[in-house]
Amino acid sequence: MNNLTKKVRWGILAPGRIAQKFAHDLKLSDESEIISVVSRDKQRAEDFAEKHNIPEVFSNYDDFYYRSTCDVVYIASPHVFHKEQVIACLNAGKSVICEKPVGISSAEAKEMIDLAVSKKLFFMEAMWTRFFPVIERVIDAVTNGKIGQVSMIKADFCFRAPLDFEDRLYNPKLGGGSLLDAGIYPITFAQFFYHSEPTIINTERVTTPTGVDGTGVYVLRYPGDKLAILSSSILTKTPYNAMICGEEGYIVIEDFLCPPKATFHYSDGTVETFENETIGKGYFYEIKEVERCLSLGLIESPKRTHASTIEVLATMDKIQNTWG
Amino acid sequence: MNNLTKKVRWGILAPGRIAQKFAHDLKLSDESEIISVVSRDKQRAEDFAEKHNIPEVFSNYDDFYYRSTCDVVYIASPHVFHKEQVIACLNAGKSVICEKPVGISSAEAKEMIDLAVSKKLFFMEAMWTRFFPVIERVIDAVTNGKIGQVSMIKADFCFRAPLDFEDRLYNPKLGGGSLLDAGIYPITFAQFFYHSEPTIINTERVTTPTGVDGTGVYVLRYPGDKLAILSSSILTKTPYNAMICGEEGYIVIEDFLCPPKATFHYSDGTVETFENETIGKGYFYEIKEVERCLSLGLIESPKRTHASTIEVLATMDKIQNTWG
Repeated sequence: MNNLTKKVRWGILAPGRIAQKFAHDLKLSDESEIISVVSRDKQRAEDFAEKHNIPEVFSNYDDFYYRSTCDVVYIASPHVFHKEQVIACLNAGKSVICEKPVGISSAEAKEMIDLAVSKKLFFMEAMWTRFFPVIERVIDAVTNGKIGQVSMIKADFCFRAPLDFEDRLYNPKLGGGSLLDAGIYPITFAQFFYHSEPTIINTERVTTPTGVDGTGVYVLRYPGDKLAILSSSILTKTPYNAMICGEEGYIVIEDFLCPPKATFHYSDGTVETFENETIGKGYFYEIKEVERCLSLGLIESPKRTHASTIEVLATMDKIQNTWG
Repeated sequence: MNNLTKKVRWGILAPGRIAQKFAHDLKLSDESEIISVVSRDKQRAEDFAEKHNIPEVFSNYDDFYYRSTCDVVYIASPHVFHKEQVIACLNAGKSVICEKPVGISSAEAKEMIDLAVSKKLFFMEAMWTRFFPVIERVIDAVTNGKIGQVSMIKADFCFRAPLDFEDRLYNPKLGGGSLLDAGIYPITFAQFFYHSEPTIINTERVTTPTGVDGTGVYVLRYPGDKLAILSSSILTKTPYNAMICGEEGYIVIEDFLCPPKATFHYSDGTVETFENETIGKGYFYEIKEVERCLSLGLIESPKRTHASTIEVLATMDKIQNTWG
């Protein structure tokens, strides 16, 4: 795209903490502009619009869906609201990128994706991690056999949230628990490399007094005796590390959600590091991917396909089923 | 002990690779001396004796048991031979420290321990890790509540052994597999802090073509919703990291088998590191513990009790039972 070409026109739905960061990064791209924002909280919408210089401000969702002139909506609301909002956007003819998980079950994801496909509109889960240069480099290296056949992947996203049982995170009716909010990262990370659903799911969880999964451990087995050992928690903190272990070495990625660096350890003792300064707050890379897909007329990202989004949610469905 | 006091007189049984390192460290202590060595391979015994200046050399085990003038025997043979050798040493009136695992089941360990107690002889599993200053410091810190209530422990000891299916490591009849050789470290590490047997054992394993556990994942749950996520492998390598996660922070120990350093990460963002240069090859610390216990007339180390040795082997029995 050059300067004469129309920029991608974005709308922001639910301008909270993450949307602030997303908007910050969006302004780092010459090929995008934010032209619309909606929040039921009028003041919040206006404050956000003022801060980011946004001409269209809505405090009614239906007005936004049908009157906003944006091309693509970024949805940053809590995940229990995603399905309704994604479907409304698509029905209004807008492309969508939606925070993860895009739904609280694979059935919800499938419904959204089917609609996007039938409407020929772009739809993508906002799995920002996938588009970091570090992750791209690691996926390339593994694909090219740099560490041989991979047989173990480990990843943890465990943090200690305030013990506020009134908070959404602890509320079973609002999709609380560590699996949906945190577990999706390690599970998706394993899927970057194994590209399939696990055949065996072996879990352990610690339940909060409110009845949600405070901590979850997920031992997943994939075809070909490949294992993933993953965990998530809102009760205890671990480093956010991920690791891919193969016949000929292993790769360590610290802070794998938004990774600045990957360290390759080869069997012969050599160590190689790939570092990449993060542009903006890390959302820049997925924004570029959306621009790229839209400019190519794609309705799904080849890097984060509809099928892979459904696959991860199907794995999470099965994990929840093991918990009864 | 001062120079006028009699030194601890050691015998070495099975002078292989590990015994070489052990002998190296033993000579760093003023309070010990090696006076005896036995190997069925006469040349090997003589070479070892010459290298370490050892007066008594045996190539027959019975001769060693009854004619060596050592006080304490260090057993470094493969673990399927331990029970017979430990019992013979004890019956010959010698104290014993035996490489881990001391037996291939908790029943074997119990038999040795019962005999040691009835003979009033010192007996200890050579769990060298326990005695490192770094581990002592971490156990103290955790016991004193420095990171609050601990609810998750992680530890991995996964290495890639040569794919030589003739090797003992791959032989089911010789106690092969990753659990006994490698898994004992992470399982023991968890027990340093949880001090009990797990109530739930949830495992996954990858079996080698020879029928042993090539990789094992052990998700253990202890009373009070405490979890341990552990793994061992002879098929793939991970960093040998351990981690203790509590309410108020977490501690990372790299190379936790023989750790030079522990890093404490507190909830308020502060980080503290405890470093300790390793004396010798790391066996020095357990040697000092044996000297200390013998000088006090103890028959078990209060830091690595008979009960804790049995507990870990009982956990490994149960893990093997989950595999059928």
